[in-house]
Amino acid sequence: MEKPCKFGTHRVIEPKGVMPQGAKKIDNSPEIQSNEILIDVISLNIDSASFTQIKNEAQNDEEKIKAKILQIVDERGKMQNPVTGSGGMLIGTVAKIGKDLNPSVQVGDKIATLVSLSLTPLKIREIKALHMGIDRVDVTAQAILFETGIYAKLPADMTEELALAALDVAGAPAQTAKLVKPGDSVLIIGAGGKSGLLCCYEAMKRVGPTGNVVAFYQDERDKENLLKGLCHKAVQGDATKPLDVLQSTLGANNGKEFDISINVVNVPNTEMSSILPVRNGGVVYLFSMATSFTKAALGAEGAGKDVTMIVGNGYTKDHAEITLAVLRESKVLRDIFEKRYSSKPA
Amino acid sequence: MEKPCKFGTHRVIEPKGVMPQGAKKIDNSPEIQSNEILIDVISLNIDSASFTQIKNEAQNDEEKIKAKILQIVDERGKMQNPVTGSGGMLIGTVAKIGKDLNPSVQVGDKIATLVSLSLTPLKIREIKALHMGIDRVDVTAQAILFETGIYAKLPADMTEELALAALDVAGAPAQTAKLVKPGDSVLIIGAGGKSGLLCCYEAMKRVGPTGNVVAFYQDERDKENLLKGLCHKAVQGDATKPLDVLQSTLGANNGKEFDISINVVNVPNTEMSSILPVRNGGVVYLFSMATSFTKAALGAEGAGKDVTMIVGNGYTKDHAEITLAVLRESKVLRDIFEKRYSSKPA
Repeated sequence: MEKPCKFGTHRVIEPKGVMPQGAKKIDNSPEIQSNEILIDVISLNIDSASFTQIKNEAQNDEEKIKAKILQIVDERGKMQNPVTGSGGMLIGTVAKIGKDLNPSVQVGDKIATLVSLSLTPLKIREIKALHMGIDRVDVTAQAILFETGIYAKLPADMTEELALAALDVAGAPAQTAKLVKPGDSVLIIGAGGKSGLLCCYEAMKRVGPTGNVVAFYQDERDKENLLKGLCHKAVQGDATKPLDVLQSTLGANNGKEFDISINVVNVPNTEMSSILPVRNGGVVYLFSMATSFTKAALGAEGAGKDVTMIVGNGYTKDHAEITLAVLRESKVLRDIFEKRYSSKPA
Repeated sequence: MEKPCKFGTHRVIEPKGVMPQGAKKIDNSPEIQSNEILIDVISLNIDSASFTQIKNEAQNDEEKIKAKILQIVDERGKMQNPVTGSGGMLIGTVAKIGKDLNPSVQVGDKIATLVSLSLTPLKIREIKALHMGIDRVDVTAQAILFETGIYAKLPADMTEELALAALDVAGAPAQTAKLVKPGDSVLIIGAGGKSGLLCCYEAMKRVGPTGNVVAFYQDERDKENLLKGLCHKAVQGDATKPLDVLQSTLGANNGKEFDISINVVNVPNTEMSSILPVRNGGVVYLFSMATSFTKAALGAEGAGKDVTMIVGNGYTKDHAEITLAVLRESKVLRDIFEKRYSSKPA
């Protein structure tokens, strides 16, 4: 093996020169380098797009699904679906810590990895159970965390399901917390979803008494939750119709353009709805994975909008701590999340 | 016609509810609304991707190319290539100014529009000449500029070709000027191109004596230009190989990570090369239209990089003035641009 790299490229088998995420095959041997952490894996949380693809291919036959998962990990050294390219997260206990590391966890601690399974070396000995309804696979397995790999210690004061639901989208609320300033007017598009609710909460906390948080949502059933103190005003509509969004949201902001918009919608063609309602010099924070780079760039130019558009980074410092803290602070959000994301095995 | 909208949606014929850029057909009648400017068009500068597609389809037959352009504009009310979706720019003189506007130009001024032809109402009376080598079409035509449409007065002290070459990429150097602070270390990826040279110049101007500007380029022929005072160090390599880029560029920055990277490469798969060399808390400015939103977002997360990634906006306040000023200030750049972008009719 080559000299250990902090990004884990020393484990790339082929093609050489790429990052672990882009690799076809990585080395999953459990002998750790001085800058790695070995994890005894308890469960894999397979990415929803990936699990759906595998279930369809296996025609929902549990034995075939298990065989497919074992085959992928055996071939690639990681649980990266070759069709969707996506991975997921894992839960496990810290088994061994490389001598050059000084991490915030100890051997025996239960953690969730916050880097994708699509780049995490994994060796499965046995699949113990399949929980089809929540995309979870209980295993006997070992995984490797690279020096730059991010993770969170699982908290003792909430269920694994609740913690994972929040950690899965930890980047968005943490970025919201850093971005929003007192007095800001903030538009959150896709406010009814998991990310949206967390972003609304953080925005409300930061804008203070002189700010205004407008929650734009699609599904009427989300209104009740949003009006439990998670926004100043809730506006219902279709995020793919920019002029309607512009008119209805400015109406909820005294006719003024917003300082910041945050897009957490998971459908395409909502770029202009995030750009038009923002003032020149304002910030458009694009967290939706359905965002088109060119539609955003050319769209802002076409409308002559001098806005700073930021690509939602899944990682920002302390994002897991910031997000878990929200579920401790807010009984309202915790109740919503516990109701929505409690374990429902198939 | 509906009440005039500043984004020009009152001219959208179909489908209703979309912005002019997304529309299949817009109203190109030369009767202006109170918030519009009428332009007597001199030339269209067709977007390179669009012109190449049309030339191929017409098998380089000039008459067929002319017919195709007339057909597109007749059908759509704008010169938006239905295959590539792209447009271009135009040059013309201001013919009439809507009564509710107070623009910085007067009737008779020669201007270049800086919004895409893909959203600009256009009616062609005659195609006078085709300049195949520089994607330029001389016409007798009229066009409409919307209230939010951006434009620049063509300067008297440089040729149209020179001004257009610079205006075409005006967003990048203007954003560089606003982003870079004294003492910053700046990595420019794709430094040998038009945008790259302008960004290098602006970065050099801003970082001052304690900063460091590293120009990463691919083509050996660009080295000579870059070393004419446009960077502190020039590094040659392949921008699609992130680990090579990381190693060679950090080597040119005393082994330290950069404060800012600016990506103006026009090939795919250079996201990680822009992200890895930047320090936590630093800025990654993505100006390349070949950028993948998800590769940037998931890539930064996968490497645990807490960087702010900004989508290159083609427009920022005063971008045309900032960019034209560069060609006046720098004899070095002006010579390079005049040599490279002088008119070479086919």
